[in-house]
Amino acid sequence: MCEVLRSSFEALFPSIEKAIKQADFVAIDTEFTGLVTDGQNRPSLFDTSEERYRKLRNSVTHLSVRQFGLSAFIKDKNSSGYEAHTYNFPLIPASFGPVDSCYIVQASSTEFLCRFNFDFNKCAYEGVPFLNDVQERLLCQSIDSGALFSGLERQFDESFIQSVCSTVAQWYVSSTVGQTLTLHKTHADAKLWNDFVIQTEVRKRFPEVWTMTDSFQNIAVMKVTPERRSELEEKAKVDREEEQEKLKQSLLGFTRVFRVLREYQKPLVGHNMLMDLLFLYDKFFQPLPADYNTFKRNLHDLFPRIYDTKHISFSMRKMLEAITGTFSTNLVQLYRILDSERATISTRFMPKVTHAKGFERYKSQDAPHEAGFDAFLCGYAFVRICHLLRFRDSTLDRGRASSACPFNMYLATMAPFCNRINIIRATINHIKLDGKDPPSLRPEKLIVRCRKRGRRLNIQQLAEWLSPYGTVDVRLLTPQSALVAAGNFSCAKAIMAAFKGHQHILVTKYRFWKHSQTAKIILWGGLLVSGGVCAWAVLSILKNSDS
Amino acid sequence: MCEVLRSSFEALFPSIEKAIKQADFVAIDTEFTGLVTDGQNRPSLFDTSEERYRKLRNSVTHLSVRQFGLSAFIKDKNSSGYEAHTYNFPLIPASFGPVDSCYIVQASSTEFLCRFNFDFNKCAYEGVPFLNDVQERLLCQSIDSGALFSGLERQFDESFIQSVCSTVAQWYVSSTVGQTLTLHKTHADAKLWNDFVIQTEVRKRFPEVWTMTDSFQNIAVMKVTPERRSELEEKAKVDREEEQEKLKQSLLGFTRVFRVLREYQKPLVGHNMLMDLLFLYDKFFQPLPADYNTFKRNLHDLFPRIYDTKHISFSMRKMLEAITGTFSTNLVQLYRILDSERATISTRFMPKVTHAKGFERYKSQDAPHEAGFDAFLCGYAFVRICHLLRFRDSTLDRGRASSACPFNMYLATMAPFCNRINIIRATINHIKLDGKDPPSLRPEKLIVRCRKRGRRLNIQQLAEWLSPYGTVDVRLLTPQSALVAAGNFSCAKAIMAAFKGHQHILVTKYRFWKHSQTAKIILWGGLLVSGGVCAWAVLSILKNSDS
Repeated sequence: MCEVLRSSFEALFPSIEKAIKQADFVAIDTEFTGLVTDGQNRPSLFDTSEERYRKLRNSVTHLSVRQFGLSAFIKDKNSSGYEAHTYNFPLIPASFGPVDSCYIVQASSTEFLCRFNFDFNKCAYEGVPFLNDVQERLLCQSIDSGALFSGLERQFDESFIQSVCSTVAQWYVSSTVGQTLTLHKTHADAKLWNDFVIQTEVRKRFPEVWTMTDSFQNIAVMKVTPERRSELEEKAKVDREEEQEKLKQSLLGFTRVFRVLREYQKPLVGHNMLMDLLFLYDKFFQPLPADYNTFKRNLHDLFPRIYDTKHISFSMRKMLEAITGTFSTNLVQLYRILDSERATISTRFMPKVTHAKGFERYKSQDAPHEAGFDAFLCGYAFVRICHLLRFRDSTLDRGRASSACPFNMYLATMAPFCNRINIIRATINHIKLDGKDPPSLRPEKLIVRCRKRGRRLNIQQLAEWLSPYGTVDVRLLTPQSALVAAGNFSCAKAIMAAFKGHQHILVTKYRFWKHSQTAKIILWGGLLVSGGVCAWAVLSILKNSDS
Repeated sequence: MCEVLRSSFEALFPSIEKAIKQADFVAIDTEFTGLVTDGQNRPSLFDTSEERYRKLRNSVTHLSVRQFGLSAFIKDKNSSGYEAHTYNFPLIPASFGPVDSCYIVQASSTEFLCRFNFDFNKCAYEGVPFLNDVQERLLCQSIDSGALFSGLERQFDESFIQSVCSTVAQWYVSSTVGQTLTLHKTHADAKLWNDFVIQTEVRKRFPEVWTMTDSFQNIAVMKVTPERRSELEEKAKVDREEEQEKLKQSLLGFTRVFRVLREYQKPLVGHNMLMDLLFLYDKFFQPLPADYNTFKRNLHDLFPRIYDTKHISFSMRKMLEAITGTFSTNLVQLYRILDSERATISTRFMPKVTHAKGFERYKSQDAPHEAGFDAFLCGYAFVRICHLLRFRDSTLDRGRASSACPFNMYLATMAPFCNRINIIRATINHIKLDGKDPPSLRPEKLIVRCRKRGRRLNIQQLAEWLSPYGTVDVRLLTPQSALVAAGNFSCAKAIMAAFKGHQHILVTKYRFWKHSQTAKIILWGGLLVSGGVCAWAVLSILKNSDS
């Protein structure tokens, strides 16, 4: 792994670009400042993909990214395997002039990162900045128009700049052409010092001076004639444009890496990566669109081939159990299963994955939930999954497996999984970026009602009763009835069986219940319309009459 | 200074309480996660106190506190001076169960804190939590009802708890009464481990076991008879209530210090402290009320005597200039002025302020913008200001000055400043917590118009033109006219003088302009109503007809 800091970004950028360019695929992972910004955006088994996108967008728009991990998998020329070039970027939103991001931090997410020794100081002091297109435009307009230095929008220490200018003013009145004043950067004010801002300000306020930094990084102010000033200004204009370009590039930071990814459109691999994709879009590209299908279309245009190892591993359950006797879709567990001796020997010529030279830190040291480490695990799992699916159950290409299998051949095998992204706790278990989402494979909803008339359901009690049977979400319909979404069929079945003849509650399938209610709903229909009462009240009446 | 961390809070709390109890007054300071949450909430010279409160409330509600500094000034028994007991608290919002604060961080504020070497890791890993009354109620309800452990609301690592319970389940089926299973806390999972949650869960799932922690901090699970289980449960109920109380107290954290401050109602001293007071109210007491006067009334009930050294120092300008030849209301500068030899010898028996034993860190080391350090500077300034104002210009009590001056006598002198809080860049320069705010002392607004018909005002250009004359805010009224609020009379006067006969713009006083417009407004009045056009359009027409 190679840690990319604000201070080393510029020097490392060319090698990052080269690694992406040479890679067969790039695995990514992101650490966020939070998951949800309020309770209403929590995932639920009742969510359709559109609803989930709306919820995630509500959160992602206000949250930010703390860390980005990128592992470029490059074919190893000396073996049939891969070399991973893994970069870990601590990130922090750019802050300069009008671009001053406000983002939400969720207390529990901070706590979560603490469990894995996350370094918050590294983000604050050495985080690489980033901008999306809208922020970049704002910044460029501001730099180009000079608004940043008009006194309207800048956020530097005004009193410090004022004191520097007073010093210059005192000298200015009694100085003659050719004389120079040196503004010394002292230890005490080094942190308030900004060469660019000070020079711009001094030049603006004093018509007959010129400024430059000397070899000690101090600023020299020289008295010049108005003619000389014009000449220098003209000459400096070209330099200034270069400097402004440098400033823009440094604030663009990680977005430049995103743009390399976009340019080469290498297959992207992630694990349970829906939120990662939303962050990628919102923070480094453009604000997330309101419409879910627009998002899917635009994302597909950006990255035409995306693979989610969480989604893929669900489909490999039987194969993995057959090989290793165990199964999990948790990233670390999945890595361990695929890295196991039994998995390695199960199929011939399993490709070797090594850390490229200079990227060995993760060789000796685990770092779960460090974005770079998770990206590496995910890429590693992807290589092994590709090979297992290509060669395990077929005699196809057995000859090819003896030498390095071309990556395109792997991708052909992975075609059924391309652009299918895992979605947790929703009506469907994955979305399809390049087409219509699949239909729901969840069991139909259950209805829970109180057996006794007038008795009220305690939603918390109900959740406690149901949760031992698996993942469920409960939504109160009326004080006496609730809708239950179960995560899978065996859970729904177990609930139906367990509560058959229960003393307090009656559990029915939603369809069956709806059917039996049709007549009554028709009867009550008149009241619904004429009374203009809310749906809740009507359902409440229905329920009471039924119990 | 004494740093109070999450791990040392419980041990230090009694001494903090004692220091507050013994203090004559307590100086405070706060570091925030941001200042404004969006551009619309930025302060402006157009703001009335109600408008400013609304803006600040919009921001403070969503922001959080990173650090709180508290310096308790206790009369030194051996001298006529004071001993400062200064505590610095890194803070972090509590995160447990349903209490999971989401707060906004402003990128430029992080950058600001970086300039002063702020330790973000200390906040994340060792920050003291806090809760306001609403959050405390939510937490207590949740702990008392057991909802936290019903599987509905908890945010612990479910798969970890699941794996612990599987281990217990495997042992449970084949174990007999009296047998014990030890759950070892390993290094790898130590961070996922939560004794309270695990024990609650195991006891809930297995009817015939009992759990306890052993001397190695592992959890022992013992098979018991149902009768023994009932006995142990009854006995544990008392213990559990104690444990829950401990949990609540630890999550309440810094709020307990706030409650001590509230209980003793010692005079509170701060520097430019309006935002500090809003944070104090919102984060440790109750969500800020929508109504400004309700806020003032409630705050006054909480802390009947509050002093703002920024507001006070503005009023002492002449005195300080006479004594030291210099003046500033910046906290560090003000401290230096008041700490100077000239200030010390200007008045007899100036009280000495020392760091109490064990609190000496700031003696040898400056730490600007560390909340504890700023609180100390502020308290120090307050003591000297009290003495200067009491004894400098009067022969009154000259005898008393020879010995320790009772604090009440200082407070009597400070009465005119009590509960007057500085307000920056607004129509007034301070608010009054215990009464009606003072009338505005700012100059009247100016109107700027284009001289040429059809010419548009460039607001940025205008701000650039005006800013050399002092602090101004500009609000575009129409494309051809703008309202200008100047920070003081000399600035307004200078602008009027400088732009007299300006080629492009015409500057007039607002009142004068209004007067000259009255006839025209009456003429145009019909259009206003019948056309139903918006105010902007009407003003625009007025302006065009005038230019």
